[in-house]
Amino acid sequence: MSEKIDTIKQWLNEHQVDVAYISDFHTISYLTGFESDPIERILALIIFAQDEPFIFAPALEVEAVKETGWTHPVYGYQDHENGWAILAGHIKDHSQHLTNWAVEQNQLTLARANYLQTALPEIKFTADLTPMLEEFRLHKSAAEIEEMHHAGNDADKAFQYGFAALAEGVSELAVAAYLEYETKKRGIPGMSFETLVQFGAHAANPHGNTGNTILQPGDMALFDLGTIYGGHVSDATRTVAYKSVSDHQRDVYNVVLEAQLAAQDAVKPGMTAGELDKIARDVITKAGYGEYFVHRLGHGLGSSVHESIQIAQGNDFVLQPNMAFSIEPGIYIPGDMGVRIEDSIVLTETGADSFTHLSKELQIID
Amino acid sequence: MSEKIDTIKQWLNEHQVDVAYISDFHTISYLTGFESDPIERILALIIFAQDEPFIFAPALEVEAVKETGWTHPVYGYQDHENGWAILAGHIKDHSQHLTNWAVEQNQLTLARANYLQTALPEIKFTADLTPMLEEFRLHKSAAEIEEMHHAGNDADKAFQYGFAALAEGVSELAVAAYLEYETKKRGIPGMSFETLVQFGAHAANPHGNTGNTILQPGDMALFDLGTIYGGHVSDATRTVAYKSVSDHQRDVYNVVLEAQLAAQDAVKPGMTAGELDKIARDVITKAGYGEYFVHRLGHGLGSSVHESIQIAQGNDFVLQPNMAFSIEPGIYIPGDMGVRIEDSIVLTETGADSFTHLSKELQIID
Repeated sequence: MSEKIDTIKQWLNEHQVDVAYISDFHTISYLTGFESDPIERILALIIFAQDEPFIFAPALEVEAVKETGWTHPVYGYQDHENGWAILAGHIKDHSQHLTNWAVEQNQLTLARANYLQTALPEIKFTADLTPMLEEFRLHKSAAEIEEMHHAGNDADKAFQYGFAALAEGVSELAVAAYLEYETKKRGIPGMSFETLVQFGAHAANPHGNTGNTILQPGDMALFDLGTIYGGHVSDATRTVAYKSVSDHQRDVYNVVLEAQLAAQDAVKPGMTAGELDKIARDVITKAGYGEYFVHRLGHGLGSSVHESIQIAQGNDFVLQPNMAFSIEPGIYIPGDMGVRIEDSIVLTETGADSFTHLSKELQIID
Repeated sequence: MSEKIDTIKQWLNEHQVDVAYISDFHTISYLTGFESDPIERILALIIFAQDEPFIFAPALEVEAVKETGWTHPVYGYQDHENGWAILAGHIKDHSQHLTNWAVEQNQLTLARANYLQTALPEIKFTADLTPMLEEFRLHKSAAEIEEMHHAGNDADKAFQYGFAALAEGVSELAVAAYLEYETKKRGIPGMSFETLVQFGAHAANPHGNTGNTILQPGDMALFDLGTIYGGHVSDATRTVAYKSVSDHQRDVYNVVLEAQLAAQDAVKPGMTAGELDKIARDVITKAGYGEYFVHRLGHGLGSSVHESIQIAQGNDFVLQPNMAFSIEPGIYIPGDMGVRIEDSIVLTETGADSFTHLSKELQIID
């Protein structure tokens, strides 16, 4: 962990910044191994260009920070105390060089920036840590990739529990809860996002919620799920048919599958994100369903389920080895049906190495 | 819903503000009935002092917005488009009065404020919507209270599924997943936060996670959970003993129970939040456990599980009828045990009306 802190100290020195104020709990987890969502309380990792870093946390989290093996100071505050004033005091105790601050501009709110500015009137928010941290997290280490493979294996098993729960009259919520129950019984600490299960026409809303729609024979069932292993996540989607499949459903399914395979087979280092999106999108457009593929092809993932890569039309970002992202085309026909097929992969020198391995051929569950 | 929008329009006119930019998805849900977490995409409700409001959403959410009965325009953007520029265009099409903006300062990030400022250089962020929206949400309507009672009934049932899952050698994760499974099978759309189950000494970390700790006879088991009903949530905690209870455990439990009942029985309109906290805290301090009650007594809740009320030491906020909050004292002895007992209540003219009714007397589960 101290290597990551050192990299940030070096960046601060190169950019003439005195203080890095890090408050995204995912970032803190990535940099220190301590993971906890403080909700509205204050949790911050303060890294100085010159001086010793520290963690500031709610009092009830201080022991948990120490248990992660954090060797620098950790300071707590109680709910009834003025956390911002206490934090300002520790900052002044640690360093005399406080003028120029770098913050996560995509995470720090205007209100919290104001609280800091009020507690420390001399500071200036001169730099944005977000691009550096995003760039940092883009490049996965062997250990990180190993964790993502573990998480992918767990996701493969979770789908199978979900398929096993399909039965006439069952609700999306019951199926999602059953697969989460079986997954967590195996010791998986959690899902990386709320499991999405959608039946029939409800799957035509690509960001709908798992709800009380009831499964009928002839429906397709879409499962989008992920698991957590160590500090990393999986994210994958499978769509299956229940009892029977119409020619129309099979046709739509096979177009999505062709698009997914085309992109996953073609992806190579040096390709842009936009080029990769186009490979899948062209397949769907040529088949006449282009208007129904209403989202980007994929997104980065790693220690959280949405990292900075956008596999989207026109994006010139160049894909490189050890970057991890999803490939997830879909067709959503309002009032009719939805299909999405997704693997998340890490790019190697030669192509895609998928974290999930469950068959993508159309399955009819009986 | 249009009444709530009108109230905000009136506030804008009273405060000489031209535009309210609302982007907290909980706030949008509260004001419009449309609930979806856009994650990193843009979702905004724009309310003008003079002109027609609109919703701006990811293209894949536009149909879902319309389905909620929203009668004003809704505009979408695709992943590959510049959402900020498109949003700016719609804002200019709707109104010619754009100078002074009110935003949710506790939600809007520095990055997003910069994107808006870049797309619309003439605008100024002159006002904070947060206090007005928090004040607005403090006062629950009869319909809102009714939903919270429903959610409380569902939480009562969820605890019982959890107690039934207690067995020697079972993990916290398995128990939490089982009670969520049984709850969702009943049609409950979701939990209002990740269910917390902690056994034995693990419960001494009041913000620890549900993990792989295994239940042993003689452990206490802490359950903190909530459910969603309509647009509202429940939040409650029970701690039970498994197989047997020591005198020490019973003593700690009874101190927490006495503190919880003292506060819940005493709470009245006109009391301050700090006075209420003190009633519970004094009981625990007199019993010699004051150092182990390391958090505030409670927090507001309603359409989300953490709203603005802080039932905390020294808080002069005056409690009034139709405000809803939790009362949740705890004692956490590191390496030994933890007990927390929580009901969430709505304040009436005469006192507390609890949303949950499950017995708080010490239960020994066999």
